[in-house]
Amino acid sequence: MVATHSDIDMPLDSPDPTDPVFALHRGGKMQIAATVPLHDADDLAMSYTPGVARVCEAIAADPEIAHEYTWVSNTVAVVTDGSAVLGLGNIGPAASMPVMEGKAVLFKQFGGVDAIPIALNTQDVDEIVETVVRLAPSFGGINLEDISSPRCFEIERQLIERLDIPVFHDDQHGTAVVTLAALINAARLTDRDLSELKVVISGAGAAGVAITKILRSAGVARIAVVDRTGVIHPARTDLSSADPAASNPVKQWLADDTAPWAKPGSVEDALNCADVFIGVSGGTVPESAVAQMADDAIVFAMANPHPEINPEVAARHARVVATGRSDFPNQINNVLVFPGIFRGALEVRATVISEGMKIAAAQTIADLVGDDLSETYVIPSPFDPRVSTAVCKAVTDTARREGVARRPY
Amino acid sequence: MVATHSDIDMPLDSPDPTDPVFALHRGGKMQIAATVPLHDADDLAMSYTPGVARVCEAIAADPEIAHEYTWVSNTVAVVTDGSAVLGLGNIGPAASMPVMEGKAVLFKQFGGVDAIPIALNTQDVDEIVETVVRLAPSFGGINLEDISSPRCFEIERQLIERLDIPVFHDDQHGTAVVTLAALINAARLTDRDLSELKVVISGAGAAGVAITKILRSAGVARIAVVDRTGVIHPARTDLSSADPAASNPVKQWLADDTAPWAKPGSVEDALNCADVFIGVSGGTVPESAVAQMADDAIVFAMANPHPEINPEVAARHARVVATGRSDFPNQINNVLVFPGIFRGALEVRATVISEGMKIAAAQTIADLVGDDLSETYVIPSPFDPRVSTAVCKAVTDTARREGVARRPY
Repeated sequence: MVATHSDIDMPLDSPDPTDPVFALHRGGKMQIAATVPLHDADDLAMSYTPGVARVCEAIAADPEIAHEYTWVSNTVAVVTDGSAVLGLGNIGPAASMPVMEGKAVLFKQFGGVDAIPIALNTQDVDEIVETVVRLAPSFGGINLEDISSPRCFEIERQLIERLDIPVFHDDQHGTAVVTLAALINAARLTDRDLSELKVVISGAGAAGVAITKILRSAGVARIAVVDRTGVIHPARTDLSSADPAASNPVKQWLADDTAPWAKPGSVEDALNCADVFIGVSGGTVPESAVAQMADDAIVFAMANPHPEINPEVAARHARVVATGRSDFPNQINNVLVFPGIFRGALEVRATVISEGMKIAAAQTIADLVGDDLSETYVIPSPFDPRVSTAVCKAVTDTARREGVARRPY
Repeated sequence: MVATHSDIDMPLDSPDPTDPVFALHRGGKMQIAATVPLHDADDLAMSYTPGVARVCEAIAADPEIAHEYTWVSNTVAVVTDGSAVLGLGNIGPAASMPVMEGKAVLFKQFGGVDAIPIALNTQDVDEIVETVVRLAPSFGGINLEDISSPRCFEIERQLIERLDIPVFHDDQHGTAVVTLAALINAARLTDRDLSELKVVISGAGAAGVAITKILRSAGVARIAVVDRTGVIHPARTDLSSADPAASNPVKQWLADDTAPWAKPGSVEDALNCADVFIGVSGGTVPESAVAQMADDAIVFAMANPHPEINPEVAARHARVVATGRSDFPNQINNVLVFPGIFRGALEVRATVISEGMKIAAAQTIADLVGDDLSETYVIPSPFDPRVSTAVCKAVTDTARREGVARRPY
C-alpha cells in the first residue's frame, strides 16, 4: 500500500560488506506491529477517534485501569546511557542501540515482553533519573542496561525509590540470578551446602556487587571480592576519598561486608583453597591459581568474549567449569532470567523486583536441571523452552506472597 | 514457547462490558516484533553478543551510520504530556496513552513508520524539551501530540532549534496541511485563486495558528482569526500582559499578522461576505451567519465529534462543506498527512519538516483528486492507497531540493 522500510535505498558501502552481521542489522532488528484491524472507517472509529475517547475517559476516571487497556501492561523500557556497553566501554548512546535492540528482541522472543530501546544522550546521574521518571507513564517496567559502575547503583536506587513500577538493572541482577542458579547446582553436584563455600569474585562492578549481594542472601558466608588492585578489604586506602567523585561507597560496603573472611592479597592469594571462582572482570587468572583451589573446585569464568581462564585449562583442575559463551558447556547467560522476571512482574503488576523474587527465579532455573545434573550441565540452555515460563511463575508466586503484586488475583 | 500477553487473565469487570471499544483495547493495540531470526545460538551470536559488538564499534567510529544499522532509521516518538487530548482536555499522560497508541498504529498502517507512544508525566515546558532532547538518540523523528496551546509552540520551537531530526506537532501542521489541500481544491472547484479568498478561522489554538501560517505561505492574503472573545485584532487588550504567564504572544502575532483586514467583531460579523469558514474551535456557528457568506461559500467545520455547524444545514448556504467526520463527505483527516510526511522525512533523513515540504504535501494531496473534483470530493479518502506514497515523494523531492536531506542520493 505504501513505501515500506525495506524499500529504502541503502548506500552500497558498508563497514564490512562481507560480514553477514552488518547485512542482518540493516534497518534494525525490530518493528512495531498493530494488533488491531485498521482497514476501514469503522476500524478507525474503534481504535482511534471517536471511540478511543471513551477509553481515555475511563482511564482518567480510574488510572488503575490504564494497564488493562494500553500496551503499557506489557512494555519495558530498555534504558541505557551508553557508558558501559558490553566490553566496549563508554561508546555513547547511538553506538549502544544495536545492543539495546538485541536485548529488546530477546525480551520478545523469550518472554513475550514488548521492550523499547531508549538510549539517552546524557550520562549525568540526576538527569538520567529525572528522564526515566518522566517517561514512566509509558512503560510497565524499566530495565537498566549497560550503565557504568558505580553510577548504576545510585541510578537504580533513586528510580526504585521514585517509581512504583519494577526497575531492574540487568547487568547486576540478571547476572546475579543466573550465577546463583548455576552455583546452586554446582554445590549440589559436589554435595556441599552454599553456606560452606569459600567464594572468590573477580570484578567489583555492577555484576560483582550484585552477585555478592545475592550470594549473601542465599546464605554464602565467605566471599572475597577482587578488583584490579587486589582483594577488597577495609585496610585498602583507595576505597573512600574526601572527594565524592573519587570515592566508591559500594567498594567500601564490599570491604566491610566481606571482612574479616576476606584477607588482603592478590586474586591468586584469595584462590588458595577457595571452592568457587566467579569471574565477571575481564581480567585473567593463571592456571597455577586454579590449581591451588580446593578439591571439587567450581570455576565460572564469565568474561565475554574472553573468559578469565581458558575453560579447557580450568577443567584440568576444577570439577565444574562454566563460561558466558555458547561454544562451551554451562553457558551462564542472562537471557535465562530477564525475560521471565519481567514477564512475571508485568503479569501481576509487581511494584518491585524483590530479592525474594530473584532468589526464587534462581532456584527455579536450577531446579529445571533436575536429575540430568552433571559437570557439564549445571544450568539450562538459553533455548530451553521451560525456563521463561518457570521463572515467570516463580516471580508471580513470590510477588503475591510478598504482597507486592498490584494484581493479586 | 512462553506465556504471551494474550494469556494474561484479565479482570472480568470493565468500564462498559457491552462496549466493543473496551474489548478491542484490552492489552493495547500494538506490539514489538523481531525482524531477525532468534532460534538458535548462531542467531543469537549474530543479533546479540558477540556479533552485535562489531556493529556497535562501527557506529562508534562513524555515528552517521547509526541510522543504517538500527531501527532508529524508521522510528518516530509520539510525544505527549496529556494536556490537550482530543476534545477531552488535560486528562494527563496515563489517560492519553490510548490515543498515542492509536496514532502509532496509524503511522504503521498508513506510512510503514514504527512509532512509539511516549506519554510524559511533566507538563513543564523546559522539562518536556529537556526530556525529548535526551531521548533523541533513540528515534528518527519526533511527533508532538495533544500538547496544549500556547505551550506547544514554545516546545516545538525549542526542539526544532536543538535537534537535527524532524520535529512535527501534528495538531498544528498535520491539520494545516490537510486543510490547505482541501482549500486548494475547493478554490479550484469554485474557480477562485487562493489569493482572492476572504477566510475566517474559528479557533486560535494549535490548529488555528498553524492553518493561518500555512494559508499565508500559500498566498491567502485576507484572514480573520476568531477566538471565544471575537476576532483577534490589535485593538484587543487581552492578548498581552505584563505577567508572562497570562500573555499569549502567539495571539499577539495573529492580531498583528491579520490586521488590517481583520476587523473587530464577532464570528458572525467576520463571516459577513467571507468566502471561507474554517472551524477548529469546538464552538458553534449559527445558520444565519453561514447564510450571510459570499456566493460559493466554503465551510470546513472540523471540530470533532461536533462540527461547528451541522454540515447538512451548512450545505443549504455553502457550496462546499467539509468536516472531520467519516460519516459525511469531505473528511479532513490528519491521517492523510503525518504518515507520508514522516515516511518521506525518514527516507531522506531530513533534518527538518520545512514549510516547503508541508505545502508540497498539501498540493500533492489536492492533486490526487484530479478530474473527479466535485462539491462532495475535495479531499481524498483516508483509505486512498495513493496518498501516503504521493506525500512521501513530495516530501523527499522537496527535502532534496531544499538541501535538508542528509541522505540526498
